[in-house]
Amino acid sequence: VNDHEALRFLMQSYARAADDRDVDRLAALFHPDAEITGSRGVQGRDAWLESMRGPRSFPTSMHLLADPLVVLADGAAEATLDTYAVVYQLSDPQSGNADLTLGIRYLDQMVRHQGRWVILRRTARTLWMR
Amino acid sequence: VNDHEALRFLMQSYARAADDRDVDRLAALFHPDAEITGSRGVQGRDAWLESMRGPRSFPTSMHLLADPLVVLADGAAEATLDTYAVVYQLSDPQSGNADLTLGIRYLDQMVRHQGRWVILRRTARTLWMR
Amino acid sequence: VNDHEALRFLMQSYARAADDRDVDRLAALFHPDAEITGSRGVQGRDAWLESMRGPRSFPTSMHLLADPLVVLADGAAEATLDTYAVVYQLSDPQSGNADLTLGIRYLDQMVRHQGRWVILRRTARTLWMR
Repeated sequence: VNDHEALRFLMQSYARAADDRDVDRLAALFHPDAEITGSRGVQGRDAWLESMRGPRSFPTSMHLLADPLVVLADGAAEATLDTYAVVYQLSDPQSGNADLTLGIRYLDQMVRHQGRWVILRRTARTLWMR
Repeated sequence: VNDHEALRFLMQSYARAADDRDVDRLAALFHPDAEITGSRGVQGRDAWLESMRGPRSFPTSMHLLADPLVVLADGAAEATLDTYAVVYQLSDPQSGNADLTLGIRYLDQMVRHQGRWVILRRTARTLWMR
Repeated sequence: VNDHEALRFLMQSYARAADDRDVDRLAALFHPDAEITGSRGVQGRDAWLESMRGPRSFPTSMHLLADPLVVLADGAAEATLDTYAVVYQLSDPQSGNADLTLGIRYLDQMVRHQGRWVILRRTARTLWMR
């Protein structure tokens, strides 16, 4: 599997682990020293993972990711990805609560770590919400 | 064309053939012995195709597929794909009927058959509807 | 970087340049003799770019592109791409104006020009609007 495919695989693995709220699988996608910048400010990997363990505002989510814009030199140990996503946060239809849809742009720095690509630095920018 | 590209081509060909309701093109994307599991239960290829010939509830559709999560060993004759999709089912604007949007997860087992990749087994899970 | 990746990079570069309304970056993605067919009829590159400089009806946009359907012979100097997109046109939340979402199908003929892939001919078909 070439590097571009491996990087796409990493992004899609993220989408599924996030939607399943599978914190162990999420942990494996990040470098131990990863830094995540998002709506909660800058967090280290473990603090960010902890925040994913909390109660969910929405029981179901779907992270629909567009093709990433990949910048990677041949054989390089680092890559940057810029990925558009629409995240569907779905309420329980019985609850009468509204759904939430977000447009997010993930800016990621990926590195090779122990033979695999992982996320070293992520900035998640919410572009819009409905 | 490498296998990953060929598998993506197959998925996008499916999207267009489904949106065009082109049953002959759909048939060519499945193995003759394919099994499709979806809202109508488990169907063989021909029974499933027959159900695609029926009248459409919505005149226009668009299958927007995210990048597939591809699992494929180098040179393998089989691959699995896990693909998120948002399917827009659009009513005639004159009709006053509401549109329908579905979040679907396609779990596909692909095989090489007569020199091409085709779908041998598909499970389509509707994750949400709006 | 292989040709398929380079073509995907071109499409994602288009999405970002269009959303940023960065006319110089857009110009670099098209052949000087490019022809763009869309809601304003057939335009040459420069006339089309000029129309992108005008005032925006919506302050924010997001071009979410599905995987392109790529047709490219090995080593060929031309490729065709067929890409589904959902374009979110977002109003200022303060304005009370409604957002607009469009389903678009981009049919592109790409060529190599001065060592890079660029768009020579584009047809943008609006499939639906909400």
